[in-house]
This record gives sequence, C-alpha cells and structure tokens, in this order.
Amino acid sequence: MNLGEVAKLIDGIVIGDPSLEIIGVGPIETAGAGHITFVKGANFINKLKLSKASAVLVGNKEEININQVLTPRPELAYARLLDHFHPQERPKPGIHSTVVLGCNVILGKRVTLSPLVSIGDNVEIGDDTVIFPGTVVRDNCKIGRNTVIHSNVTLYSNSIIGNQVTLHAGVVIGADGFGYTVDEKGMHTKINQIGNVVIENNVEIGANSCVDRAASGTTLIKKGTKIDNLVQVAHNCTIGEHCILVAQVGIAGSCKLGHHVVLAGQAGLSDHVTVGNHVTLAAKSAALRDIKSNSVYGGIPALPLNIWKRSVTVLPKLPDLARTVRDLENRLNNIEKKNSGE
Amino acid sequence: MNLGEVAKLIDGIVIGDPSLEIIGVGPIETAGAGHITFVKGANFINKLKLSKASAVLVGNKEEININQVLTPRPELAYARLLDHFHPQERPKPGIHSTVVLGCNVILGKRVTLSPLVSIGDNVEIGDDTVIFPGTVVRDNCKIGRNTVIHSNVTLYSNSIIGNQVTLHAGVVIGADGFGYTVDEKGMHTKINQIGNVVIENNVEIGANSCVDRAASGTTLIKKGTKIDNLVQVAHNCTIGEHCILVAQVGIAGSCKLGHHVVLAGQAGLSDHVTVGNHVTLAAKSAALRDIKSNSVYGGIPALPLNIWKRSVTVLPKLPDLARTVRDLENRLNNIEKKNSGE
Amino acid sequence: MNLGEVAKLIDGIVIGDPSLEIIGVGPIETAGAGHITFVKGANFINKLKLSKASAVLVGNKEEININQVLTPRPELAYARLLDHFHPQERPKPGIHSTVVLGCNVILGKRVTLSPLVSIGDNVEIGDDTVIFPGTVVRDNCKIGRNTVIHSNVTLYSNSIIGNQVTLHAGVVIGADGFGYTVDEKGMHTKINQIGNVVIENNVEIGANSCVDRAASGTTLIKKGTKIDNLVQVAHNCTIGEHCILVAQVGIAGSCKLGHHVVLAGQAGLSDHVTVGNHVTLAAKSAALRDIKSNSVYGGIPALPLNIWKRSVTVLPKLPDLARTVRDLENRLNNIEKKNSGE
Repeated sequence: MNLGEVAKLIDGIVIGDPSLEIIGVGPIETAGAGHITFVKGANFINKLKLSKASAVLVGNKEEININQVLTPRPELAYARLLDHFHPQERPKPGIHSTVVLGCNVILGKRVTLSPLVSIGDNVEIGDDTVIFPGTVVRDNCKIGRNTVIHSNVTLYSNSIIGNQVTLHAGVVIGADGFGYTVDEKGMHTKINQIGNVVIENNVEIGANSCVDRAASGTTLIKKGTKIDNLVQVAHNCTIGEHCILVAQVGIAGSCKLGHHVVLAGQAGLSDHVTVGNHVTLAAKSAALRDIKSNSVYGGIPALPLNIWKRSVTVLPKLPDLARTVRDLENRLNNIEKKNSGE
Repeated sequence: MNLGEVAKLIDGIVIGDPSLEIIGVGPIETAGAGHITFVKGANFINKLKLSKASAVLVGNKEEININQVLTPRPELAYARLLDHFHPQERPKPGIHSTVVLGCNVILGKRVTLSPLVSIGDNVEIGDDTVIFPGTVVRDNCKIGRNTVIHSNVTLYSNSIIGNQVTLHAGVVIGADGFGYTVDEKGMHTKINQIGNVVIENNVEIGANSCVDRAASGTTLIKKGTKIDNLVQVAHNCTIGEHCILVAQVGIAGSCKLGHHVVLAGQAGLSDHVTVGNHVTLAAKSAALRDIKSNSVYGGIPALPLNIWKRSVTVLPKLPDLARTVRDLENRLNNIEKKNSGE
Repeated sequence: MNLGEVAKLIDGIVIGDPSLEIIGVGPIETAGAGHITFVKGANFINKLKLSKASAVLVGNKEEININQVLTPRPELAYARLLDHFHPQERPKPGIHSTVVLGCNVILGKRVTLSPLVSIGDNVEIGDDTVIFPGTVVRDNCKIGRNTVIHSNVTLYSNSIIGNQVTLHAGVVIGADGFGYTVDEKGMHTKINQIGNVVIENNVEIGANSCVDRAASGTTLIKKGTKIDNLVQVAHNCTIGEHCILVAQVGIAGSCKLGHHVVLAGQAGLSDHVTVGNHVTLAAKSAALRDIKSNSVYGGIPALPLNIWKRSVTVLPKLPDLARTVRDLENRLNNIEKKNSGE
C-alpha cells in the first residue's frame, strides 16, 4: 500500500510523496521506516523530529521534513489505519469437538465456538460471532452478530447481547442482583432476581466486570457504551448511550445514566442516583445525589469539580488555619479585655 | 392459586376477594392483571393507583380500591411469594459426561455436576447441590447440601462450603493470602499460606469476589452473611453472622467483624481492625481503627457518621473560610497597630 | 528432623536442645508440641509463655523457658521452614486427556496441564510449570519454568510469563487496553490494542486481577513484584521490581513505577503518573501527579502522608472552626464599630 492509498482509506490529503510504500502503523515511540504515525500533545513536533516514521497524520499542515496526511481527526484516522493494518484476532469459524451444546440452539453463519465452551438450551448466536475457550452461555441467551466473547465469561440465563459487542475475559453478565429483606429473626432473606440483562450494540465490557440481572425487568447497557475492567453495574441500572465507565467504577442499584457520561476510575454512585447527559465524574469520587446534564463533579460526596478542587487546595493548610484562628481569638480576647478595662 | 391461598402461604389476611385468581407476583412498575405486588416508600399509594396489579401486600389496611393482603412484613411476604412463583433455576440432577472427577469423590443424592466441571480428589458434595459449567473444585473440598455454585468458580484445596450457600460466577475461594517477608536482598519472599476458608450455611457471595485462605488456621465467613460482587476478603478474617458486604468492599488481613455489620459499597478496612455488632460503615469510607458495636461510621479515615457529614458540609466553604481568616487577621493587625499607637 | 537440623536449614544457632524432634511449624496461636514457631510484635514474650510450641525463632536471645533458634531474620527463617514443612501443592506432571492443545505447542519437561485446559497455537511452556483446570492460554504465549497458573485464568495472545511466576485463579493477562477515540458522530471508536504483556520472573498476581495489553509495545511487570487480588493494571504501564500492589489498587494507563513501591489497598494512580523508587502510597489515596523517590503519600489527591494526617485531624473540628470564625468576625465588627464611634 502506498501513502496515496492510505490517505484515500481515511479521506485524507497527502502532503509529500503519495507513492511512498506504507507497511504499517504505530505510535511515535516505535514507528519505523515505512510506518505512518500519529502524535498528540503540545510538543509533538519535537517528538516527530526524533521519530523514524515515514509519514504522520496531522490535523493541520506542519513545517516538518516528513510526509504528512492531512485529516480533520488524526486520532480517528489512526484508529482506522490500525484496524486496517492490525485487525483484531478472529479464530476460524467452526464448532470445536469439545463444545457442549444444549437443546434447541440456533447458530448463525460462520460462528466460532472454541474449545471447552458450554452453551445452554434455547440459545441463539448470530452470524460471525466468536466465543473463546472456557466461556459459559446459559439457557435462553441471545447473542447478536459479529460479537466477540472472550474466555471464561459467564452469561446467566436470559441475557441478551447485541451486535458488535465485545465481552472480555472473566466478565459476568446476569448474576443475581444484591437484593434481600430481613425476616422475623433478623436474617437476610433473598429477593429472587427474576429480571435479566440487555447489552445493546457496539458495547465493550472489560475483564472481570459484572453486570447484574434486574430484580425484575432489565438492567440495560445502551449502545456504544464502553466499560473498563473490574467495574460493577448493579441490578436495574440503565447506562445510557456512549458512556465511558473506567476501571473499578461501582454503580449501585437502579441508577440511571444519560448519554455520554464519563465515570473516571474507582468512582461510585449510590443507589437510585440519576445522572444527566454529558456528565463527567472525577476519579474516586462518589455521587450520592442526582447530577444534572453537562456538569463535571468530583469528591466524596461529589461537588462541582471546580469547587472540590478549590476546597482540597485548602486541606493541607487546615492545621495552620486552625492555629491562626486560635491566635486571632486570643488576640481578640486581649483587645476586648483591654477595651472593657478602659 | 387464588388470593386466599396466597394469603395463607404468607400468614396474611385478605381484605377483598379471596377467590381472585393470582397468576404471578411482580414490582409495582410491571405488575399486571392477576399479579400481586408490593410497594414501599412514602408515596406508594399514588403508585398503586396507577398500577394494574390485582392485589397488594400491605402492612396496614389502606384506603385504596384494590385487593389487599395484610401482613406485618410486606417485603418479606413479597420475597416468599417471588420464591413460590419464580423459584431459582435449578438444572436437573446428574453428572454430565464431560465432568472430570478425581479419586475418592463422595457425592450426595440428586447432585448436579454440569458440563466441563472439574472435581479434585477427596471432595465431598452434599445432597441437592448444583455446580454450573466451568467450575473447578480442587482437592479435599467439602461442599454442603442444597448449595449452588455458579460457573467458572474456583475452590482451592481444603475449602469448606456449608449448606444453602450460593457462590456466583467467577468467585475465587481459598487463593493464597497476600503474605510476604523480605529477604537479605530486599526481595519479597512468600510465606506459604497453609490455612483454608470456611463458608458457613446460608451465605451468598457475588460474582468475581475473592476470599483468601488463611496464612494458617481459617478465614471464616459466618452463617447468613451476604457478599456482593468484586469484594475482597483477605486472609485470616472472620466475618460474623448476617453481615452485608456491598460491592467492591475490601477487607484487609485478620479483621474481625461482629454480626449484622453492613459495609457499604467500596468501603475498606485496614488489617487487624475489629468491628463490633450492628455497625454500619458508609460507602467509600475507610476504617483504620476498631469500631464499637451499634455505631455508624463514614469518611477517610472513618469518623462517626454525623460528625463526618457535618465536616464535609464545611468543605466547599473552606476557600471562603480561609479568606475570612486572612481578612480578620488584617483587621486585627490594624486595630492592634492603632491601639499600640494610642 | 531435630532442632539442630532445623537450625542448620536456616543458618541459625540453637539455644537449647538440638536433639529435640521438630514435626512442624506454625504461628503462635496454633503451634503445638513438636512445632517451631515465630512471633513478632511488642508483647510476644507473653504470647510465648502461653504457647505449647517446642521451639521459637528469635532475633535475640530471650529469657524464656523454651528452646530458641537464633537467626538475624526470624520471619524469613519462618517462611523458609514453612516452605520446607508445608511446600505448596503441586499436582503430578502430565497432560490430562481433556486438555485441548493447539498446533506447534512446545512443552518443557515435567509440565502439568490439568483437566479442561485450553492451549492455543505456538505456545511454549517451560519445565516444571503447572497449569490448573479451566485455564485458557491463547496463541503465541510463552510461559517460563517452574511457574504456577491457577484455575480459570486467561492469557490473551502474545503474553509472556517468566519463571517462578504465580498467577491466581481468575487472573486476566493481556485483555485489550481501554483506548478509544471519538468519531464524527460522537461515538467511541476502538483503537486496536496491538501490544502485549510481559510478566518477569518471581512475580505473583492475585485472584481476579487484570493486566491489560499495551496499545502498542508492552505492559511490563518487572521481577519480584507481588500483586494482590482484584487489582487493575492498565495498558502501557511499567511496574518496577519488587513492588507491592495491595488488593483493589487501580493503575491507569502509561504509569511508570520504580522499584520497591508499595501501593496500599484501593489506592489509585491517574494515567501517565510516574512514581519513583521506595515510594509508599496509603490505602484509598489517589496520586494524580508524579511522586518522587523515597516518599510516603496519602489522601485524595495525595499529599505527603504527614501533611495529610495532620489535615484530616482538623476535619472533624471544621464545623466548630467555622463557627469560631463567624464569632470572631462579629466581635471584630463590634470593636471596629465602637472604635470608629470614638
């Protein structure tokens, strides 16, 4: 492939030699001769000068001695070229001899069921879907087209997984929500969780994350949402479209998130919290109350981020502040004493 | 089943038509004709008026135009009816042909070993216990009666699991505790973890949670305790009876919890912390010291919850407070200067 | 084995009867007749007086009526004796008939592949390595000598695991890093993660922890590092030698840790944070910026630990402090009013 063809693939414009052969794509640190690269950040020009890459994706024409491809979204173009030069691994279609299939299983075309996969009764799996070794799909699950389920995943019964979904290793979909009531003797009595989980199209869920089935009804992950590793989504939550849940986030029961919500690492939501659209919650913060659309929050409990940031700036000065106040009090006492003595 | 029979099942009293046919049970949002429902919260009367349910469980007789069943604990009655109308799924007993059994395995009556389960040597499994596909039970484990172990669970050797226990998918019981000492060269040297884990009756443990084996002796989860997803219980802990550990809680080594302790989501305990009975620790808080019985704590480090709540109320005002103190200091300086000049 | 032989094993000196028979080793609480024990902490002499142990490892000669073995590092000696008397369980070498082997797999001597293990193509496994049931090793992985991989672990393709490594149950190595860019319509578009994970010698990783593959290049865990359960290490991180990552720690992308770093439980690092050598980060804290070598930090955001500790001491007094400031302000107003009236 030459640079002209690469540019065409991403609707870009070549500034330089379109006949240059491009053999790969990679980040600035490792890209070598024949590679096209991409950089972001303030001092990327300096990084580029040290790079051995043969071409670079840029948003604006730069004064550098390297072939450029002009494109309005260089990172997006980079992602698309990566997908072209390094497509995700897909094992060959087919049902391995060690797969255990239940009754009444409906498989689409070119499905891959890898070794030691267990499929329950009444399961449907769409065309081109891949299931890696050791995964368990229980009764009555429906899995869409072109979906990838990695190893040692568990889908509890009645889970519904869309198209182009990726579930990473160890994910658990549809385990019972954490619902109990107390009996006469103070013992926790299980409230059977009779709902299910629905994961819409183009969702990706990271390793060892959990999405619990609803108490009744559905725990819903809407289309395009991306969930990192070790995240907990409790029963009856609705996670809106195109959200980002970073690693170790925990969302308690019955939360409702709008679209384009970003929860940074280890953030948490109390139960029944409603979050609007385009909300960002900072890492490690805890939203105990509803959050309106288009806002950025942080802290425990969460405050508007700028307020939280200003507050924590004072924290290390608190001991001094307390000492100053005691000092002022003493001085004021002296003045008042003196004044009353006058 | 008619409403009279439903009421009898839960020792309730019908207010309305006992001959009414009841075909199911569900929450207020989805209950339809023929369903009995239950609501809690302040404005449940308004919710009921919008519901299509045919009957409702109530603690006190209400002035509503719907059949009622009077019962002192409506939520408990609801849980019991759910269990009647929607019992938990139990696959048929039997040993699937792909199960790998070790030597000297003792199986009770009506045990279910699902596909691709691996059972080690000298394992005992009680009557009516179900193990779902992909689970691994290592040597010398004992599992009680009527217990359910979901998929891709790992029980390390010598783990002892009681009766009516539920372990959700991905749970790991008995992995090595995190114990090292430093050698002459500053390298961490493993202290072999030669203890085990004991899980008593009626415990439930959520997906991908971990309970480590003791350094020596036993890590113990006492009866009736319920543990949510992605929880960490370190070596040599004792978790008392009827505790609630919400998702992503982390308990360091050698902690002792009394009974009826509630640790809310993402809370943490330092090692060797002792917590009394009936203690609640708020979400995301960190108990670094022992906590007495019958108390509620929150914050990092944990304080009595009312103190923590009052403190965090001041947090957003800290920058103003600091400015006020500086201002007071200036004004006081002026007064003192003036006074000394008199 | 007699006490003299035990002492020789650890280069210790017997104070007492070297002919005493030693049948085991255990902690002070459970050690009985014939056992050698070890205690640490202030009042260990009192504990020893109550113990039935026949001998004790000590750093200095103690005035107690029990056989002693003098050794400069009693805990290290204890670890070595534990390893002698209670070596870690190792199943017999061999390939179980249910193992699924890919093409071109190279196995060392005395390898154990347990039931229901799946090995991909082009995998190399070194001498004396053990893989427990239900684990999945995907294509092109290399696993060193004398390594133990527990059950239901997943190694994604191209993962490289060193010698004497232990991976506990449910660990996921090499899942995709969490990398997306936004397309023209605001949808998150995956940046294919084409790097891998390298785990060096003598690393141990706890149950259900995750180490993501690099976007490109390598996510690296250097030799001797110990990682607890449910830890997240994101793409492109480098964790230095002999680090300790306690349970539920989360490390965002591209962090670099020096050697002998300790991250206590539930601590978190923002992306691109660089941490020096011999740094300790307190439990639950969040490092948002680089941390220099030889420092101890804590809090959200992390401060030098002594500063953080002093600050949080003031927290419960904040409401009083705010009240005092208001009071001072009033009193000062009065004085100023009076002064201006003079």
